[in-house]
Amino acid sequence: PRGTVDLLATWGWREKVELAVEYAAETGEATYDVESLDRYAPVTDPAKVVCVGLNYADHADEGGFEAPDAPVLFSKFPTALTGPEAAIEWDPALTEAVDYEGELVAVIGDRARNVAPEDALDHVAGYTVGNDVSARDLQLADEQWVRGKSLDTFGPLGPDIVTPEEIPDLGDLDVWTEVNGERLQESNTRHLVFGIDELVSFCSRAFTLEPGDVIYTGTPDGVGYFRDPQVLLEDGDSVTVGVEGVGELHNPCAHTDR
Amino acid sequence: PRGTVDLLATWGWREKVELAVEYAAETGEATYDVESLDRYAPVTDPAKVVCVGLNYADHADEGGFEAPDAPVLFSKFPTALTGPEAAIEWDPALTEAVDYEGELVAVIGDRARNVAPEDALDHVAGYTVGNDVSARDLQLADEQWVRGKSLDTFGPLGPDIVTPEEIPDLGDLDVWTEVNGERLQESNTRHLVFGIDELVSFCSRAFTLEPGDVIYTGTPDGVGYFRDPQVLLEDGDSVTVGVEGVGELHNPCAHTDR
Repeated sequence: PRGTVDLLATWGWREKVELAVEYAAETGEATYDVESLDRYAPVTDPAKVVCVGLNYADHADEGGFEAPDAPVLFSKFPTALTGPEAAIEWDPALTEAVDYEGELVAVIGDRARNVAPEDALDHVAGYTVGNDVSARDLQLADEQWVRGKSLDTFGPLGPDIVTPEEIPDLGDLDVWTEVNGERLQESNTRHLVFGIDELVSFCSRAFTLEPGDVIYTGTPDGVGYFRDPQVLLEDGDSVTVGVEGVGELHNPCAHTDR
Repeated sequence: PRGTVDLLATWGWREKVELAVEYAAETGEATYDVESLDRYAPVTDPAKVVCVGLNYADHADEGGFEAPDAPVLFSKFPTALTGPEAAIEWDPALTEAVDYEGELVAVIGDRARNVAPEDALDHVAGYTVGNDVSARDLQLADEQWVRGKSLDTFGPLGPDIVTPEEIPDLGDLDVWTEVNGERLQESNTRHLVFGIDELVSFCSRAFTLEPGDVIYTGTPDGVGYFRDPQVLLEDGDSVTVGVEGVGELHNPCAHTDR
C-alpha cells in the first residue's frame, strides 16, 4: 500500500500493521528517528472529509446558534488537507478572516454502512488532531460552508493516528488551541453534543463511510471570529491544536499571492 | 490507467487517448458493441464532486431565492456517484422527499489553480450529464446541503464524456428532465447565471481542481419539490436527464430498507 487510505482498504490491515511493527521492533529494520523525518498528514487523499458543525454547545452558543437536534454535517474538499508544520496559506485578496478550529478527528478503518451507535467505533481505525481552518468571510457570505472551509492548506491533520486501545476514555479528552502561545480554546470531549459513536452511525445512515475517510468532529468555543476582541489569523502566526493523549498539531500561517 | 481519474492524471492523456482510438479504429482491437456493455459512470471515485446551486435564475426564483452574486458551491461525497441505468435508491424511513435535478456536468482534465475565466475551459476534459438527486427534507432541515445530496446513488452520471470539440456552443445546449416520460424540466445552458468558464475559474481561486474532479453546474427550474402540485420521486419511477449533444442519462428509482 502506498498510503494510509490504501493500507486501511487492505484486508486484515490491523493484523498486518501489528506484524510489521513487531518485525521492525525485533529487527530494527525500517525504523527511523522521528526527529529526522518530514511529517505529512497521516491520511492523504481520503475519499471524504466529513466535518461536524456546532458539536459543542458552548461553540454553538458563541456563534448565536442553538445546539442542534441532529449532527450538522458539512465537508472540506480533500485538497485542503495538509500535514504538521506545513504552512496554512491564503491570499489576503481572497479572504481577510481566517480562523482556527481545534478538533479531534476520527479516521475510518472499515467500511461503515448503516451501523448502529453501539457498533460504530469498531469501524474507526484511530484518532488524530485536526484544525478546521475557516475563511469566515467566505463561509458566512456563501451560507454553504464548503468553499470557505476548503482553501488549499485549510485542513491541517496529524501528527499521528493513535489507535483506540491507546485512548483510555474517548469521552474525556482535553482539547485546546493556542495561537502564538496563547491558549484560546480549552474544552474537553465530554462536552461534545454528539459522541464519535453517534457521528459515525449518523453518517453511515446516509452514505457509506470508507477506509481512510476522516471525520472532523467539531470545535469547542473560543474560535477567533466570535471573540471580543476578535482574533483573526495573520501572516507569521503560529497555531497549535492539542488533544490529550492524541497529540499536538502545529502549523505556521503565511500569506500567498495566489 | 485503471479508471478515468488515473487516465486524466497521466501526462499527455489527450494524445494517448487519440492514439488508442486511432489504433482501435484501424485494427478493430479493443472495440465493443456498446449495446453489449454494462455502463458505469464515466468517472468513478473523483477526488471532488463540486456542485453549483441556484445557477439558473428561474430555478433560484422558484425556490424563493435571489439569483446569487457569486456561485454558490456545495458538494456531494463521491460515494454518491452511480452510472446510467443504475437504480437511485433510498430508504423511505430516512427521506420522504427525493427530487431530481438535471444538469450539465464538467469533468476536469488538467489541474487548475487560480486560472482566469479565459483560460478555464482548457482545463476541462469534457462534459457529461448528471442528476443532482436531492433529499429535500434532509437538505432543508440541515441547512448545510451535503448530507441530503450525498446519499449513496444520489449522483447519477453519464453515459459518456463528450469532448469539447464535439460541442459547437457550450452556451446553447438544451437541458431537460423527464419523469416517467413526462418532461418536467426544460431549459438551455444560455440561461446559466455563471458559465462553465466562470465556475472553473471561481473554484480554482479557492482550491486546486484536479484531473477527474467533476462539477455539477446547476439545475434549471422545474424541480419536483417546488412544483404545484409537488412531484416527489417514488419507488418504480423512471428519470431521464438529457443535455443536447452530450447525452441522455436514465435511472430507475427504488426503495431500499437500508
